[in-house]
Amino acid sequence: MAPKHDQTSSPERRFKVVGTRPLRHDGIDKVTGRARYGADVSLPGMLHGKVLRSPHAHARILGIDTSRASALPGVKAIVIGADMPPVRSRTEQSGEGTTNPRHLSDNVLAKTKVLYTGHAVAAVAATSPHVAEEAVALIDVRYEVLPPVLDVRAAMRDDAPILHEDLRTANVEPPCDRPTNVANVVRFERGDLAAALAAADVVVEREFDTAMVHQGYIEPHNAVAKVDADGQATVWVSTQGPFEVRHFCSEILAIPLSQIKVVPAEIGGGFGGKTTIYLEPLAILLARKSGRPVKLVMSRAEVLRATGPTSGSHIRVKLAATKGGRIVAADATLTYEAGAFPGSPVWAGAMCLLAPYDIDALRIEGHDVVVNRPKTAAYRAPGASNAAFAAEAVVDELATKLGIDPVELRRKNGAREGTPTPAGPRHKRIGLLEVLDAVESSPHWRAPLGVPSDASVKRRGRGVATGFWFNAGLQSSATIAINADGTASLVTGSPDIGGTRTSCAMIAAEELGLPVELVRPSVADTDSVGHTDVTGGSRVTMATGLAVYEAALDVKRQLRERAAALWKIPVEQVSFADGHATAEYGGHPPMSLAQLAPKLGRTGGPVVGRATVNAQKATGAAYAAAIVDVDVDVETGKVDVVRATVVQDAGRAIHPAYVEGQMQGGTVQGIGWALNEEYVYNADGHLLNAGFLDYRMPVALDLPMIDAIIVEVPNPGHPYGVRGVGEVSIVPPPGAVANAIAAATGVRMTELPMSPPRVLAALHAAGVRVTPSRLAAGTR
Amino acid sequence: MAPKHDQTSSPERRFKVVGTRPLRHDGIDKVTGRARYGADVSLPGMLHGKVLRSPHAHARILGIDTSRASALPGVKAIVIGADMPPVRSRTEQSGEGTTNPRHLSDNVLAKTKVLYTGHAVAAVAATSPHVAEEAVALIDVRYEVLPPVLDVRAAMRDDAPILHEDLRTANVEPPCDRPTNVANVVRFERGDLAAALAAADVVVEREFDTAMVHQGYIEPHNAVAKVDADGQATVWVSTQGPFEVRHFCSEILAIPLSQIKVVPAEIGGGFGGKTTIYLEPLAILLARKSGRPVKLVMSRAEVLRATGPTSGSHIRVKLAATKGGRIVAADATLTYEAGAFPGSPVWAGAMCLLAPYDIDALRIEGHDVVVNRPKTAAYRAPGASNAAFAAEAVVDELATKLGIDPVELRRKNGAREGTPTPAGPRHKRIGLLEVLDAVESSPHWRAPLGVPSDASVKRRGRGVATGFWFNAGLQSSATIAINADGTASLVTGSPDIGGTRTSCAMIAAEELGLPVELVRPSVADTDSVGHTDVTGGSRVTMATGLAVYEAALDVKRQLRERAAALWKIPVEQVSFADGHATAEYGGHPPMSLAQLAPKLGRTGGPVVGRATVNAQKATGAAYAAAIVDVDVDVETGKVDVVRATVVQDAGRAIHPAYVEGQMQGGTVQGIGWALNEEYVYNADGHLLNAGFLDYRMPVALDLPMIDAIIVEVPNPGHPYGVRGVGEVSIVPPPGAVANAIAAATGVRMTELPMSPPRVLAALHAAGVRVTPSRLAAGTR
Repeated sequence: MAPKHDQTSSPERRFKVVGTRPLRHDGIDKVTGRARYGADVSLPGMLHGKVLRSPHAHARILGIDTSRASALPGVKAIVIGADMPPVRSRTEQSGEGTTNPRHLSDNVLAKTKVLYTGHAVAAVAATSPHVAEEAVALIDVRYEVLPPVLDVRAAMRDDAPILHEDLRTANVEPPCDRPTNVANVVRFERGDLAAALAAADVVVEREFDTAMVHQGYIEPHNAVAKVDADGQATVWVSTQGPFEVRHFCSEILAIPLSQIKVVPAEIGGGFGGKTTIYLEPLAILLARKSGRPVKLVMSRAEVLRATGPTSGSHIRVKLAATKGGRIVAADATLTYEAGAFPGSPVWAGAMCLLAPYDIDALRIEGHDVVVNRPKTAAYRAPGASNAAFAAEAVVDELATKLGIDPVELRRKNGAREGTPTPAGPRHKRIGLLEVLDAVESSPHWRAPLGVPSDASVKRRGRGVATGFWFNAGLQSSATIAINADGTASLVTGSPDIGGTRTSCAMIAAEELGLPVELVRPSVADTDSVGHTDVTGGSRVTMATGLAVYEAALDVKRQLRERAAALWKIPVEQVSFADGHATAEYGGHPPMSLAQLAPKLGRTGGPVVGRATVNAQKATGAAYAAAIVDVDVDVETGKVDVVRATVVQDAGRAIHPAYVEGQMQGGTVQGIGWALNEEYVYNADGHLLNAGFLDYRMPVALDLPMIDAIIVEVPNPGHPYGVRGVGEVSIVPPPGAVANAIAAATGVRMTELPMSPPRVLAALHAAGVRVTPSRLAAGTR
Repeated sequence: MAPKHDQTSSPERRFKVVGTRPLRHDGIDKVTGRARYGADVSLPGMLHGKVLRSPHAHARILGIDTSRASALPGVKAIVIGADMPPVRSRTEQSGEGTTNPRHLSDNVLAKTKVLYTGHAVAAVAATSPHVAEEAVALIDVRYEVLPPVLDVRAAMRDDAPILHEDLRTANVEPPCDRPTNVANVVRFERGDLAAALAAADVVVEREFDTAMVHQGYIEPHNAVAKVDADGQATVWVSTQGPFEVRHFCSEILAIPLSQIKVVPAEIGGGFGGKTTIYLEPLAILLARKSGRPVKLVMSRAEVLRATGPTSGSHIRVKLAATKGGRIVAADATLTYEAGAFPGSPVWAGAMCLLAPYDIDALRIEGHDVVVNRPKTAAYRAPGASNAAFAAEAVVDELATKLGIDPVELRRKNGAREGTPTPAGPRHKRIGLLEVLDAVESSPHWRAPLGVPSDASVKRRGRGVATGFWFNAGLQSSATIAINADGTASLVTGSPDIGGTRTSCAMIAAEELGLPVELVRPSVADTDSVGHTDVTGGSRVTMATGLAVYEAALDVKRQLRERAAALWKIPVEQVSFADGHATAEYGGHPPMSLAQLAPKLGRTGGPVVGRATVNAQKATGAAYAAAIVDVDVDVETGKVDVVRATVVQDAGRAIHPAYVEGQMQGGTVQGIGWALNEEYVYNADGHLLNAGFLDYRMPVALDLPMIDAIIVEVPNPGHPYGVRGVGEVSIVPPPGAVANAIAAATGVRMTELPMSPPRVLAALHAAGVRVTPSRLAAGTR
């Protein structure tokens, strides 16, 4: 047999495991109910905690009296804001965006003010959840109620109620010198905008509003903490980022990192919303104070009122084009709700808004504005769906005005390798044009539109939109240990929210020449694996996968050494490929991993490979497009999606079925944004729909099967070409649905969600009504 | 500041952490009751199991009827021997001795025969322990009772009852061709024994008997297993060897290694007895059959009747010396109880028996003999205490006959570097002579003997004895991750039975220049760390510590690279020592780990170091000596130890307090062997003392404080000179106590334990009685 050298990631590399669709390793555990989620954790002597939350959207806390609650039998500990250490205010970069630890602390437990209904004010640990609930009701808080501000435009007015007296707008000249609700401004400028606008043939300018929406993960937040007598804390929690939980808790509780161990439980959805902390510090404080383990689990209403929605926004977009269809100028303003504390994803919205387009002159400005709503958290391509809804609608309108096919217009102006991004740096190799090709050649795009079942009351239309997400890199660690029977154990620090145990195991299996079933993947706690950033930014299969790939190379290097030692030949004469060590000379028969593994002990001990990466340079940006056919009921304003296709550049699909699952899931969430989901507040700032009966997410009955078309334009920065697939599919749907409604009815919707009342109002305003023949037929 | 290069293990290396006595990391958890032991594990829907055990010492199983038990409400699964897969009989080398998987399987659950009272016959899982217990009583087993054989000499007779019809003696010429109870013979020969004996001036020959004794760990065996629908098994268990548990279960249940995960719990003592399996396969089988998690916990009586005692033995030793005190010939036969299945530590006994001596002509033969007693398991320096009791008594008698001080006789004949061991290979650098020096200069040895409080009834004497243990190497893995605050997380696979979390953390701290409190040690499960052999053979601080040392070097290599990248200088110009990176040129101020750690992400990602070792070449043998003063009550035969000192060569004491703890603990157990502990069987093979009330272990009231003197003769094979300290201290005490009794009374005891009835009988036989004056005084 001819010797083989180590495989590398040549374009023509033929994969054996990558690209197949094996069962996920955790699948049976999950479908049989065996998987252990955060709320399943129970410890001996454990107490149960509840949180007292503000009934006011904006109020000063004048005093908190816990004496009645403390006196209740069974109450073991109560904590209020004053029990937390002071934290310095500063901005720091973390896994998904920026965090100010003082704001984080104040969001976990209000100190002097409450800033939204549901803001945590106190927490109780008691011998049962019922006693804790009773105790919470016995805590007396005296408030001075203040007027709330709920809308970003109102919050920017000079006479607006001020949330934070010490807040000054960052990044403005001259420096801001008085209290404001505008926390930050981001601005991208390029070219001579005035000249470009003046020279253009067609200009479209519109303003858009999008609603605050929630990630809607099925599993509420939870945390179980124990604190030992020497101060060592252990926290079991449903989180996307155990190292972030450790870091944040360390910072706001002033506990050294090495005194906190975070054990990630299985996770019932996160979508970005489980990258920060809510209950974890309260559990630690209550456990420390009571001397017993404490479990806290949120209700659904608490999740909706007090955790991670993403920003509603107001966006203005002006695009100008030549008659020939070249977009020459863009001017946009994005104003995003940060919620009660600074930190909306407006920077990401500004980066993504026009990233699919090559425009010479542009000006994009973003405002991060605090309002009396819950602090926003990351949500799948944070900020990009809002932005794309606005941009893709304007592009669609431009296409209509210019009489150019909307896909053709996008291709003509499409970003490609070397195109400058809105923020400045040029695109690396990207797959937008390939995505557009796939749209045009898709069965959906080529199919006739068809007619609704009841054409008298329903109008059908087709829309298309694109979306961009840059994908994150960040840090990951991995170790691979070879077992004596030739199987492998893989340890990473990335909680598995989308099948990444399996995609990472597939990468190890590919390199080691093993069936994926013989690679056993584990997600370790923060004591047991190297630092690994958050599961987010579509990064796990790309970045943790890169660490796995490099750890496998480390294993292969050692296996070659061991085989060389057994054969008594120089290591340079040994290669390892396809699961076998092979000697270049000497007639040694190839040795499989299963044959080599039991001999490792005698050749120097076990073999363990390890790698750590900062994957920044390995990132690859992702594009997606959605094609949506809708039926608009002009009698009720109800919009039904009757066909939907998502096309996405995965770079390389490690596990195509899970890539399709991500694409379908993102599309469904995007359709939820488009049609129904929104936070409904009254003027006092009370959330009126804090439950899944009233907060309307799409269910299976609402939707057709989502067709998923994977495009593979390999990311040259990654050995397998992986880009990351988890997020970008949520970006196009709102724009695509709006464009489909416009196609069906001629009415341009500018507000999300495009729910029946809004659509009906817009139809009526435009004079679109039920076909008279139907009324005449008296079918009502 | 002058540049420093990486520290190496030069003899003059000055340690900062090694040699100090910090608190153990798990100390507070353990003293506050927070530590989680095996029996603390509970899973949702968990069943409780009980084991049906044989009432006969030797019987054929004619049939098992489980129908009445199955019909009991709450019974969810029953397993009997026929439910286990067939396993091929073969001998394999494992962590502590040899194992035959078929015998292991038969010991876990009897198939066709029961071989000792307590032998497991069936196991039941039910909704409560009480239901399971009731069900066990409803299982009908038909037995054909056979005559048992309990004594090794009886078992070797031609007409002895045969335990295994297919057993043939291994390693004999001509090959054994008929059923036998002698499983194995080991033989070491050197020199012309007959000539040496003939030329000697003094010969002493004696025969000795030692009792079967139990390790006496405080925590009974336990196992919790869950088996998922896809066959993946997880086992939580108190064990010294999670990888051994995985391997053994894999082998006897025919489940691939990668389908079993073993999670080691905290361990309440093991002493070698938790290196094999008993309940683990039963828990897996019951969990698989019932589809629910199953917990099994033994009672104390089950532990004593059916788990790991160590061998009782019959030993003959003949030593011959010249008048000048040179020991010139040795002839010895060791016959050890294997218990019901082959595998006593007679090979280790034969290796250790005369290892402290340099004797030109010797012949040592060992027999491994099966008897109708529980299968023996490893127990602290397995086999060596029996052997040393015999050899050290004969050496003491020689000293008396020759009129030479017993320490002087040992020094004159003492083994040193280059002396051949009884098995052949020559000793590496050893510390026996330094131990003897320390004995002679010890306060105890130099102190006058003193007189008992009641000299009329008590006689006082002082004895000394030495002991040898070779210490194990085996395989270990370790990883060290650097946290962003400059602390470190350390992961090993070695369950901590003696403070090795801390000793390993100290090695990491020493290398990284950190306080040990900032190194957080974890013991991982079998999925989460590289293969690591059993915690046993005194190997963890030596071998796992070596892996930790090398993992720390791997970390330091990377830290140097990162510092070089930050300083933009070649890595060769950067050293890392005392917790700081230092540049040779360029005036860069030294950078501490705490300063460097937050910058790792930007210089390539996190830093994780890993190492795996086969520590065979790094092992260093250990010697110990005990000095014991006893008072012998000649009226009752009761022997009290009134002063005891243990001297031991640790090579290098990483944590002196825990080394002293090991020395004291081993000495106490050795005194237990010497004075009280024994399995008492009646002629039918029923254990009469299956509880700690009747199985008499030493308690605090029985003993004086044990003085511990650490000798440090560095092991040249190990970078810090560590030898391993856990075992050898149990070897000298039985001989030292016997020699002290002989010194006090002139009576040579040849049977363990030297309990009051035996001592009294020996005193009476020798005519030693209460001083007449006392009787005359009428104090009775």
